[in-house]
Amino acid sequence: MLRALDLAATPGVPLGPNPRVGCVILAPDGSTLVEGFHRGAGTAHAEAAAIATAREQGIDLTGATAVVTLEPCNHTGRTGPCAQALIGAQVARVVFAQSDPNPEAAGGATTLRDAGIDVENGLMADESQAINRVWSFALAHQRPYVTWKFAASLDGRSAAADGTSKWITSRAARVDTHRLRGLADTMLVGTNTVEVDDPQLTVRDADDHPIEDQPLRAVMGMRDLPARSRVFDGSAGTVHLRTHDPAEALAQLFAKERRHVFLEGGPTLASAFWKAGLVDEVVTYVAPVLLGAGRNAVDDLGIHTITDAAHLRVTDVRVIAADDEDTCVRITMTTHDPVTAATAAPEEA
Amino acid sequence: MLRALDLAATPGVPLGPNPRVGCVILAPDGSTLVEGFHRGAGTAHAEAAAIATAREQGIDLTGATAVVTLEPCNHTGRTGPCAQALIGAQVARVVFAQSDPNPEAAGGATTLRDAGIDVENGLMADESQAINRVWSFALAHQRPYVTWKFAASLDGRSAAADGTSKWITSRAARVDTHRLRGLADTMLVGTNTVEVDDPQLTVRDADDHPIEDQPLRAVMGMRDLPARSRVFDGSAGTVHLRTHDPAEALAQLFAKERRHVFLEGGPTLASAFWKAGLVDEVVTYVAPVLLGAGRNAVDDLGIHTITDAAHLRVTDVRVIAADDEDTCVRITMTTHDPVTAATAAPEEA
Repeated sequence: MLRALDLAATPGVPLGPNPRVGCVILAPDGSTLVEGFHRGAGTAHAEAAAIATAREQGIDLTGATAVVTLEPCNHTGRTGPCAQALIGAQVARVVFAQSDPNPEAAGGATTLRDAGIDVENGLMADESQAINRVWSFALAHQRPYVTWKFAASLDGRSAAADGTSKWITSRAARVDTHRLRGLADTMLVGTNTVEVDDPQLTVRDADDHPIEDQPLRAVMGMRDLPARSRVFDGSAGTVHLRTHDPAEALAQLFAKERRHVFLEGGPTLASAFWKAGLVDEVVTYVAPVLLGAGRNAVDDLGIHTITDAAHLRVTDVRVIAADDEDTCVRITMTTHDPVTAATAAPEEA
Repeated sequence: MLRALDLAATPGVPLGPNPRVGCVILAPDGSTLVEGFHRGAGTAHAEAAAIATAREQGIDLTGATAVVTLEPCNHTGRTGPCAQALIGAQVARVVFAQSDPNPEAAGGATTLRDAGIDVENGLMADESQAINRVWSFALAHQRPYVTWKFAASLDGRSAAADGTSKWITSRAARVDTHRLRGLADTMLVGTNTVEVDDPQLTVRDADDHPIEDQPLRAVMGMRDLPARSRVFDGSAGTVHLRTHDPAEALAQLFAKERRHVFLEGGPTLASAFWKAGLVDEVVTYVAPVLLGAGRNAVDDLGIHTITDAAHLRVTDVRVIAADDEDTCVRITMTTHDPVTAATAAPEEA
């Protein structure tokens, strides 16, 4: 299973709407016959990939044991059901880690058992869930996981009294933000941000080149958008969600197979999601800067007394660009308490 | 010299107004004859301690080399001058790391050379200075080093709209603050804090017992203090500095041999020191809490635009009580750029 988890976590795999899955098929003597992993939406699932390799190489899987990180799927989506493929390959035993939280795809274990295959599940389930932390959450809750990022000075300001903000949104923090954006599949702003700031909302790498798989650009709000807005420049997909309701916006995005939304708007958008209880993760870049005045980074969250305050769980603390003039401290927190928080810093998954 | 530095850094030595110093005296063949270190104000200096041990044990130091972390002193304070003691012991050579920044005590090297002793200096001077970071700064600038500590939520608030502040000044942060206070020799508040909050201003250990060597409690301001204030409870020394001028307050404290002042007052006191350019170190406890409203942790610092902002250098970032409900992130910063910042986190010196 450790090897299957390693395969699932193969670096550079574009995630898309699908989970990371690895599969190792073992001979009755415990030796490895063949391996496979999922390379993202539209490509073969891990089990199918392993079975296909076995077929190419003329390896007989009869009586073998398939070890897979996620319950083999039971539905025909872009690819056929893996449970059927395993039955067809005549394996004797299937060991999987995490049950499929996707109600559409679940039921693979039952199908396998009904076909007389010995099924064992739960082995290293937490580790598999950690690899697919965001996906598991999204499928279980039937809405995308929401990350809210903001940058602030030590004293909670986003800009000085005159609106200037150098060092607070530093180059180091921007580069790091682009990396985090690239791990999400959607960036969300309000219509007001498009009108006022006209951001391009693309993800660039450390060399300032656009990355290959751009997240979707989502703009939320009732007002029409200026046709010349940079979000319509064609450099990535763009969708206008005609609603003010965060839950409705997330439902529309989930229907578009979006699993991870990065809140990129200003304090008003974040405040709306916050009050709706729809923020799962907060990433704060704290700049070692004191202002004593200026715009507050966080606006009204509807909190009057400390026991109503949002008390978050710290999952990661990191110094960004430690030796740089514009260093800052990134604090990552979750609003809930995933069992796997300690092992599942998103950027390392 | 490494061994001398180790001796200087002997744990548990009460610092008082004096630096940490270690001394190793070597025979001409390089073997160690005797060692010594300074145990704090009023006790023998490191060289004197080593020479006294040699005398007790009947070891002849004629022709030996004394390796010492600080330039041997040249003045008679509570104890006699070390330069004279080394001359009396007939050592042939003195190697020291850091020149004495104390104008009253300096000149030992010249005295030794005039007596025909071979003197070499500067070997591992940075390391010695790191051990005595605060003391070196205070003597060089003829005023105490100033640390300003404050606690804030992620969004820079010190309390919710109704004044409640649980988690922001958490138990974990309080215990850690007491430890830092114990490394300073003075805690400073304004008369207003004494009148309103009536703090005891003592240092307690992790078991909530008062530590043995309590820092001085200094109260700054023109108003008379209520005689029943807890700062007059006799559990530690207390001094009332009748001034509003931070520079004058520090001058009075330096005259009382104070080397490290911990600002414990509210935002007004901190703001006054800040505007006077008299804050050397900032320690911020960031609680993973969002409020969106409430009292700002830092008041007016006279900053209007970002280029006037206090842009600090981060020297240490630490998660306090990581597994605790009231965990927080401590960020330590300096307003200047001591060459030894990286090696001289105060709590590890």
